[in-house]
Amino acid sequence: MVLNKRLVIKVLCAVMTLVGVLMLLPCAVSLIYGEKHEALSFAVCAVPMALVGYLAFRSSKAPESNNLGLRDGFFIVGSAWMVLSLLGALPFMISGAIPNVCDAFFETASGFTTTGASILSGVEGLPKGILFWRSFTHWVGGMGILVLTIAMLPALGIGGQKIMRAETTGPSMDKITFTFNDTARSLYLIYSGMSLLETVLLMFCGMDLYDSLVYTFGTVGTGGFATMNNGLAGYSVSAQLVISVFMMLAGVNFNLYYLCLAKKPDQAVRDPELRCYLGITFGSTFFVMYMLIRAGMAAGLFDSFRLAYFQVASILTTTGYSTCDFDLWPLPCRIVLMLLMLVGGCASSTGGGMKVIRVMMGVKIAGRGVRKRLHPSVVDPVKIGGRIVPENVTRSVSEFLLLYLFILLAGTVLVSLEGADLMTSFSSVLACFSNIGPGFEAVGPTLNYGFYTGATKIFLSVLMIAGRLELFTVFLMFTPAFWSRK
Amino acid sequence: MVLNKRLVIKVLCAVMTLVGVLMLLPCAVSLIYGEKHEALSFAVCAVPMALVGYLAFRSSKAPESNNLGLRDGFFIVGSAWMVLSLLGALPFMISGAIPNVCDAFFETASGFTTTGASILSGVEGLPKGILFWRSFTHWVGGMGILVLTIAMLPALGIGGQKIMRAETTGPSMDKITFTFNDTARSLYLIYSGMSLLETVLLMFCGMDLYDSLVYTFGTVGTGGFATMNNGLAGYSVSAQLVISVFMMLAGVNFNLYYLCLAKKPDQAVRDPELRCYLGITFGSTFFVMYMLIRAGMAAGLFDSFRLAYFQVASILTTTGYSTCDFDLWPLPCRIVLMLLMLVGGCASSTGGGMKVIRVMMGVKIAGRGVRKRLHPSVVDPVKIGGRIVPENVTRSVSEFLLLYLFILLAGTVLVSLEGADLMTSFSSVLACFSNIGPGFEAVGPTLNYGFYTGATKIFLSVLMIAGRLELFTVFLMFTPAFWSRK
Repeated sequence: MVLNKRLVIKVLCAVMTLVGVLMLLPCAVSLIYGEKHEALSFAVCAVPMALVGYLAFRSSKAPESNNLGLRDGFFIVGSAWMVLSLLGALPFMISGAIPNVCDAFFETASGFTTTGASILSGVEGLPKGILFWRSFTHWVGGMGILVLTIAMLPALGIGGQKIMRAETTGPSMDKITFTFNDTARSLYLIYSGMSLLETVLLMFCGMDLYDSLVYTFGTVGTGGFATMNNGLAGYSVSAQLVISVFMMLAGVNFNLYYLCLAKKPDQAVRDPELRCYLGITFGSTFFVMYMLIRAGMAAGLFDSFRLAYFQVASILTTTGYSTCDFDLWPLPCRIVLMLLMLVGGCASSTGGGMKVIRVMMGVKIAGRGVRKRLHPSVVDPVKIGGRIVPENVTRSVSEFLLLYLFILLAGTVLVSLEGADLMTSFSSVLACFSNIGPGFEAVGPTLNYGFYTGATKIFLSVLMIAGRLELFTVFLMFTPAFWSRK
Repeated sequence: MVLNKRLVIKVLCAVMTLVGVLMLLPCAVSLIYGEKHEALSFAVCAVPMALVGYLAFRSSKAPESNNLGLRDGFFIVGSAWMVLSLLGALPFMISGAIPNVCDAFFETASGFTTTGASILSGVEGLPKGILFWRSFTHWVGGMGILVLTIAMLPALGIGGQKIMRAETTGPSMDKITFTFNDTARSLYLIYSGMSLLETVLLMFCGMDLYDSLVYTFGTVGTGGFATMNNGLAGYSVSAQLVISVFMMLAGVNFNLYYLCLAKKPDQAVRDPELRCYLGITFGSTFFVMYMLIRAGMAAGLFDSFRLAYFQVASILTTTGYSTCDFDLWPLPCRIVLMLLMLVGGCASSTGGGMKVIRVMMGVKIAGRGVRKRLHPSVVDPVKIGGRIVPENVTRSVSEFLLLYLFILLAGTVLVSLEGADLMTSFSSVLACFSNIGPGFEAVGPTLNYGFYTGATKIFLSVLMIAGRLELFTVFLMFTPAFWSRK
């Protein structure tokens, strides 16, 4: 089985066209704000990309077959995110906003993977069009990941949707038959509707249209790029609360919204992953509230709730916004936030991390291990929400969790060679791999990744893409088996 | 199935007798050094314990059956280590060397679990008899764990030996039929012979008999209690090298020595876990050497080798001795040491941690996960040394690794509530759970665990025992299933 090269080329040409077309939007924003230089930078990227991409798409030879093999699928998904990040970086370089190629690639990969890690030490002076494009990549990336995990990855046998379909919902779930176009259309609707609603609400809370859009992109895509150096600290409390709630909503499995649209909200409410996700959110919020009040770092109950809920929602969904410097919080809070970074959002959400459902299964797998010692011959399947999880799924979840943790540890060793402290090295790897953005210490919420060398920036960018694409997609390409002709 | 109470009581009485008899040795040492107060403290513990234990053993009702159920086995193993630690702590308290009960329990649990974590801020002024007992618990604990993992745990269906027997050796391994007495006798021989050899060699290197014995106890038991505040820094280079080599030997699967005695050294040499263990040891040594030379922290090649090899062997085997303050080393060295803390020694050695064979399998399980995405229907078993690992073993290894990592993370959150920094909290949990001893920052090699509250000391002691007894033994007792009458 060799790679279906013609098909791959066709898809990548389509991706190029798409990037070109998408860039017309920030180009328009630049024009509106009178930023002629930036508008030109976008135009000289957008027009050739869209034209060349389209012409190449039309003129490239038709693939010998339209059969998408597993190998083709993985290659297309992985390389599409790479190409997105490379092409998307061009306006940053051409406009001079981020002249260095490694920096621009890092920033764009961070955008399209909805990570939100930045190499910029300050964003307030940057042109509006540039910042718009930077945040818009979150929105595009979030949509891309939804279509990918809900409509494409299951066909490749990986990702949350498969776990979900096999395990976490009632049998009636199976009756909803997904086809690519159907699903994608519903997702456009849900995702766009959510974005529209948040934008309107933020405007009611006193933000202007531009800021509302930027923060909506960052929220629903669980990205985290901001337009102010101190994150959301400068905005009204009501705006902060709106963003908290929408971050939490963006971390929910989007299939559940689909169920609600299909008039089955009772099923959605009974979803065990959703319940666990809400439990983690509010459990952690109350813990952080208690610690903040004890440490005298919040002015009363509501203030502590506002700070704690915002930060927990932001970190658990891997968005990465902040309303204060959480790196100054008491250690137990920071450790809880670090654990939330590992957990991440629900499967088939725009959030990153290991995903709630996998952590639930991991805990149950470990617990089963304890019980099994006492009753070795008793059949003791792992159950989620009363339903039995097949052994091949628990096995695949174990593999995922082990791979995730190994990569985290190995990545920390590599990044530590740069000479930063342990917390910086570890949280850089964790924050990029789990698509969060800010970490602790030198990459804390008020600081940035600019001090790393180019090689480390590229490494962290690859980790972002690998984490975003559910690990296997990217790591497969590093195995000899992937490239063998057998 | 209810607990076979009479049998449990009989075994615990035997343990009590044993502790009493063992205490006669430090009592004699105290007399030799003219420490009358300490000799008396040992005597008032030893004699009643031995007598009461023996009489209770003789007079307690015979168990209704000699059938050792799984539940009985787990309860006996877990409670035996608890009773050992409680009774063994008495001389420390009575003599006044460690008056506080939590402190004394921590120190004794640390001894019998061969951890080597201490609450003492300085040991140089302490009576010789007390320090002898402290180190002697390592030797007893090391022997106990060998008998346990090689001869008892397999019957309970857990532990390294089962993995080993099922997976890592050739078919001829099966022909060696273990019976409890046989195995125990061979192990006494191997363990005692190794101890004798090390004692003699250390005396050749200039140590006196007392120090040679204490460091031998700490080495072959992979414990780590010392008689000097600065560890081994004050001893000759030759003594340091002897200890390095014996630490490494103590971290090897003792079944391999058995094979050598059975004139099958070729099989022992081909053991994949041994090869991996040696690879990790020397790979890490060279990495640390390079970093030390680059940082100008070693005077030449030999000096860097001495420092690096000693520390790598000490940490990988979970002994915990040091010849310098490795907490001052460059960050990549410290991270590598931290990873070695996770790995630990080979299965069926006196070392702690997750064990080399489990880490090998974990890595292969994760790698299989990647390959499986590309060829989902291909049967792709995990192989160690060319032999297929059955799925129930890979599953049980996954369960173990996940449980291990979850406990580490949850333990860190709990300990962090004390208010120490992250590195201290995490490395305290890791160093106790993996039975190493020293950690980093406030529990670094030159510091101690004395500053923790009593509750945390008890928690860390339980972690030591849980880690030592391959997790499941202790955690089972916290499950409702264990206590249910069904």
